Amino acid sequence: MDLKSKIRVIEDFPEKGISFKDITTLTKDGEAFKETVDRIVADLKGRNIDYIAGPEARGFLLGAAVAYALGVGFIPVRKPGKLPGETASYEYELEYGNSKLEIHLDAIEKGKKVAIVDDLLATGGTVSSVVKLIESLGAEVVALEFLIELEFLKGRENIEGYHINSLVKYDR
Amino acid sequence: MDLKSKIRVIEDFPEKGISFKDITTLTKDGEAFKETVDRIVADLKGRNIDYIAGPEARGFLLGAAVAYALGVGFIPVRKPGKLPGETASYEYELEYGNSKLEIHLDAIEKGKKVAIVDDLLATGGTVSSVVKLIESLGAEVVALEFLIELEFLKGRENIEGYHINSLVKYDR
Repeated sequence: MDLKSKIRVIEDFPEKGISFKDITTLTKDGEAFKETVDRIVADLKGRNIDYIAGPEARGFLLGAAVAYALGVGFIPVRKPGKLPGETASYEYELEYGNSKLEIHLDAIEKGKKVAIVDDLLATGGTVSSVVKLIESLGAEVVALEFLIELEFLKGRENIEGYHINSLVKYDR
Repeated sequence: MDLKSKIRVIEDFPEKGISFKDITTLTKDGEAFKETVDRIVADLKGRNIDYIAGPEARGFLLGAAVAYALGVGFIPVRKPGKLPGETASYEYELEYGNSKLEIHLDAIEKGKKVAIVDDLLATGGTVSSVVKLIESLGAEVVALEFLIELEFLKGRENIEGYHINSLVKYDR
């Protein structure tokens, strides 16, 4: 299936000059959503994943379905003030604006193997932040999985040395 | 499995007097997360569901996994400014504070059958709002599925006439 054909591109959202990749047209298509999850799961097979982690909010959508399909737990990485327990936090730059993410200090035990799932690899700011949070807990990040990669933003340069898989690539 | 034993209760979060039900301890347990999703899926079998809808952000986590398991599409219902296309919106009261939700106008076709999945039934404000948004598109809400029901907040009174299923109940 051509997953790219299921993604809608909306120009100038959330601000002028941004060509926004809208995945809601993919997730509403049951077959396309299933294939997206199954292709991520296929790439993770054999990597002995203990947990899937995903950043709020679209990372929950893909990541939780991948965790379910693999039969492993899902670890939410959230915006400030959302997690009720003690957290580690990390502030970072986005493609547009700044953001901060938090993870529960007891979310992941030392030495566990974690795959991060998100909808989009843009500049790599979000995923780098999630990597740092997970590694700060003493766990190991073994794969970074994305539905979409915006290759022109060169996000891979911010996450060198990790296994990276993206299903759909854009050059603008 | 006793799903309730997997949920952590944290007092006075996000404000004094609220006994917060933390589902991150359940979702990190692969077996508990799978059983949660499978029990929701079992309740939806035979209802001819076309789509699962879930509100941001924890509704994405459960709802997307349920959609994947059923092989149907997932429709995100989001906070303002997140959806890039044309939207319908609805403002409502929460257990603490106000909120507003949006859905894409082209998210669901007229006459389609939709189940709403969320982590929590509290006062019913969020789910009522999601029901109204889906019905405003001409679609039919056939089931409301929750991991947790706070029975003392009597949220069911705000969503009478719908099929409601909750897996874990609290009386405080």
